[in-house]
Amino acid sequence: MSQIDLNCDLGESFGQYRMGNDEQVLALITSANIACGFHAGDYSEMRRTVIRAKRSGVMIGAHPGLPDLIGFGRRAMSMAPSEVYDLTVYQIGALQAVAAAQHVRLNHVKPHGALYHMASLHEKYAEAVAHAVRDVNPDLLLFGMDGTFLTREGERAGLHVVYEAYADRTYSPDGSLTPRTESDALITDTRQALKQVIQMIKEGSVTTTNGSKAKVRAETLCIHGDNSAAVAFAAAIRDELQNRGVTICAWT
Amino acid sequence: MSQIDLNCDLGESFGQYRMGNDEQVLALITSANIACGFHAGDYSEMRRTVIRAKRSGVMIGAHPGLPDLIGFGRRAMSMAPSEVYDLTVYQIGALQAVAAAQHVRLNHVKPHGALYHMASLHEKYAEAVAHAVRDVNPDLLLFGMDGTFLTREGERAGLHVVYEAYADRTYSPDGSLTPRTESDALITDTRQALKQVIQMIKEGSVTTTNGSKAKVRAETLCIHGDNSAAVAFAAAIRDELQNRGVTICAWT
Amino acid sequence: MSQIDLNCDLGESFGQYRMGNDEQVLALITSANIACGFHAGDYSEMRRTVIRAKRSGVMIGAHPGLPDLIGFGRRAMSMAPSEVYDLTVYQIGALQAVAAAQHVRLNHVKPHGALYHMASLHEKYAEAVAHAVRDVNPDLLLFGMDGTFLTREGERAGLHVVYEAYADRTYSPDGSLTPRTESDALITDTRQALKQVIQMIKEGSVTTTNGSKAKVRAETLCIHGDNSAAVAFAAAIRDELQNRGVTICAWT
Amino acid sequence: MSQIDLNCDLGESFGQYRMGNDEQVLALITSANIACGFHAGDYSEMRRTVIRAKRSGVMIGAHPGLPDLIGFGRRAMSMAPSEVYDLTVYQIGALQAVAAAQHVRLNHVKPHGALYHMASLHEKYAEAVAHAVRDVNPDLLLFGMDGTFLTREGERAGLHVVYEAYADRTYSPDGSLTPRTESDALITDTRQALKQVIQMIKEGSVTTTNGSKAKVRAETLCIHGDNSAAVAFAAAIRDELQNRGVTICAWT
Repeated sequence: MSQIDLNCDLGESFGQYRMGNDEQVLALITSANIACGFHAGDYSEMRRTVIRAKRSGVMIGAHPGLPDLIGFGRRAMSMAPSEVYDLTVYQIGALQAVAAAQHVRLNHVKPHGALYHMASLHEKYAEAVAHAVRDVNPDLLLFGMDGTFLTREGERAGLHVVYEAYADRTYSPDGSLTPRTESDALITDTRQALKQVIQMIKEGSVTTTNGSKAKVRAETLCIHGDNSAAVAFAAAIRDELQNRGVTICAWT
Repeated sequence: MSQIDLNCDLGESFGQYRMGNDEQVLALITSANIACGFHAGDYSEMRRTVIRAKRSGVMIGAHPGLPDLIGFGRRAMSMAPSEVYDLTVYQIGALQAVAAAQHVRLNHVKPHGALYHMASLHEKYAEAVAHAVRDVNPDLLLFGMDGTFLTREGERAGLHVVYEAYADRTYSPDGSLTPRTESDALITDTRQALKQVIQMIKEGSVTTTNGSKAKVRAETLCIHGDNSAAVAFAAAIRDELQNRGVTICAWT
Repeated sequence: MSQIDLNCDLGESFGQYRMGNDEQVLALITSANIACGFHAGDYSEMRRTVIRAKRSGVMIGAHPGLPDLIGFGRRAMSMAPSEVYDLTVYQIGALQAVAAAQHVRLNHVKPHGALYHMASLHEKYAEAVAHAVRDVNPDLLLFGMDGTFLTREGERAGLHVVYEAYADRTYSPDGSLTPRTESDALITDTRQALKQVIQMIKEGSVTTTNGSKAKVRAETLCIHGDNSAAVAFAAAIRDELQNRGVTICAWT
Repeated sequence: MSQIDLNCDLGESFGQYRMGNDEQVLALITSANIACGFHAGDYSEMRRTVIRAKRSGVMIGAHPGLPDLIGFGRRAMSMAPSEVYDLTVYQIGALQAVAAAQHVRLNHVKPHGALYHMASLHEKYAEAVAHAVRDVNPDLLLFGMDGTFLTREGERAGLHVVYEAYADRTYSPDGSLTPRTESDALITDTRQALKQVIQMIKEGSVTTTNGSKAKVRAETLCIHGDNSAAVAFAAAIRDELQNRGVTICAWT
């Protein structure tokens, strides 16, 4: 397989607060994960972001998060799985209506921040997210990492799972991401990042921090657009992938 | 026409906070206006309320409100019509997904509190609400009072409008509700309330505070369930309507 | 020492949402822990509660909680200790001003729910809370349980610590509360509760779930007022304590 | 009198969201109006802003706003005067504690956005704000415009009122600001702005939009720091005022 999707979190502005470089990023990516008003974004920003993504020909997805605007949805909260289910249903539904009003179809769901981690690491939360997606619309794709509960429960729920990989993060021997607390967690060299991505796409493997290879499924790459350096990094990866003959497009 | 719908606001509890007598009310009404998490309600309460309404055979509708939990959505906020459009789309979508996950269809939309008043009195807000409903799902019924911008814009947007009337409020000569600040605004006598409702249904008119008659379309009655007296009042109205041969059922 | 304070969480209503039996409880207690608008309560309820407590001759304290209204501040959130410090300072300050405007002095601080647990179990959070209290006003008393980081850090910060005990909870052999998940966690028999309290006050010990005795300092009893049964339970304890010659009053 | 204070809104960042150029602005101003977590700012940003202002030798004041983060406190809400009183007390208290924890004294209060307008135009809201300030701490200065209810009620409450004027806004013949909706509302020419300020300080008057003069008290100038142009404008005004021998310092 020589096809990959590029996804990025978008629509994270809130009220008067601006965040991200959405217009620049939209020129690079093929799937936009749109914040749904809990950890970031608001009802008006959602509409504006859907319109921008549509104009750019980028597929849109819901990016539900924890109800924690002040923490940007990045910190774990101990909650019942049923609550995770409920808040995921709610946020997907909200964005789905915003999209429908713009005559756009929602294509995927990718949980945000702490919700993504909680659903990756805990079976009950993974099941809650997967069932929420399925119950709102079983045709929605679910984004998650290979080897996590999130993708396992997504498959079990009968969803089309799209496996996410990272160009700018190193992997541990077990195939998981090296924690950010480690000194070698980040890849800042474009060449090294590109090499990792090509290997993931062509061979389905990644060379881990101890030199061993681990299997990894890479169907969508997570891109960051927080600042101009991140945007330039993403643009370089994208260009090189195209030069190598990799088709860049969203899954549907 | 001798048919009427009975609607009531439901699902107004939030987190640990309980409000209303939903189970008792569900035995009386035919349409539930479910709070969508802005002025009241939350994502979990929405699921529970949808399940209860389904079990009771009551049709469900979205009850979107202003983003003002502390004020219970009852106070006007000066906002752009586009923001009213956006928050209405968002909330309808959220409830629509909650309902879909329970295999229930959303049947109607009734704006809450200050949003209802703003959309009744101001053309731009009325248009914003009507377009929001239409753009999410043109099959949704819109509840509003005759003679307001809300129902006028609803009709202009091509929506099926259901005209709402009140059993427990008096009417001014121009067909609007007597403001609550007036001493004769409320009807607490069941017999008088019933007489008003029957006249509205059978004759399409109401006897106003100065004795004159005004035309009024009454297709759904707004019921209150805040306390046991309100519930008893509603039950009495319902029983008498049935005794008089009025069919009580939701519009679809 | 034959003196004890009775404290209870108050002022937990929010906007239109009512919670608790504050008037009944105020007749029983000597210290009110007033919610500060984060997990419960709001700016107006705080004023009303301060006025009621003042009228009842009850000492008032701040009851800061996590920023989680929907979870009622009962679920842990992973946050930086500096954030715990900041939100504690903020909430104490808010209530202090509300009290000052009513010519009442703030007497104590008791963290709420998950914040109380986090500060009991984790040194960094305990230090954050203790320093927050000290930095706002070193004369404020800090409520917490013996054997926790919260009271240890309170002492280290030079605060006057008031040791809290429970009439309606059993204790484990190590002197901590039996987790609520255990079947024998709660004491519902008034006689047993009273016996436990008297032993705590007179002997400074508690008979734990395995029959052994553990040392416990009991200077303030935590009372619950959630429902009429809880209020009756508290009233019975209070009456019996007075009958046994225990002085019931707040610490200052 | 040839002394003037320069004030600016600061500490408006929230969680991960950055706003303003606080460090640059602090080098120019003498009074910082610090957001208190309702319309902008949060408990941690408040601490950081107090520390920065202290380091810069800038006096700090509370900048309370309406509970409307998504609207940035800029839109009117219809609320009871008692609620305005309560939310003002709460926010002043919160910042006062944050300041006390940093060994800094709160010097003034300036309401934000819609709250400022509501209190300027409506007697009841003006009284609510003035009484809130007085009841928390009668030594706090109150900032407001001459000819408004806000300053009138501030004086009546016995507060020290500091009269605010604008360098970058034109004035109507009645001494009020020209509404922003008018084409000639803003002054963008530094020379014209400076001339207006000098006249206000030296003569106590302003030349209004129809060429007539109106009396105006100018004791503090409102500076904007939203972008680099605004900062440059403020710096130019400040330099020129100093060149003209006007002393720039806060009132105490």
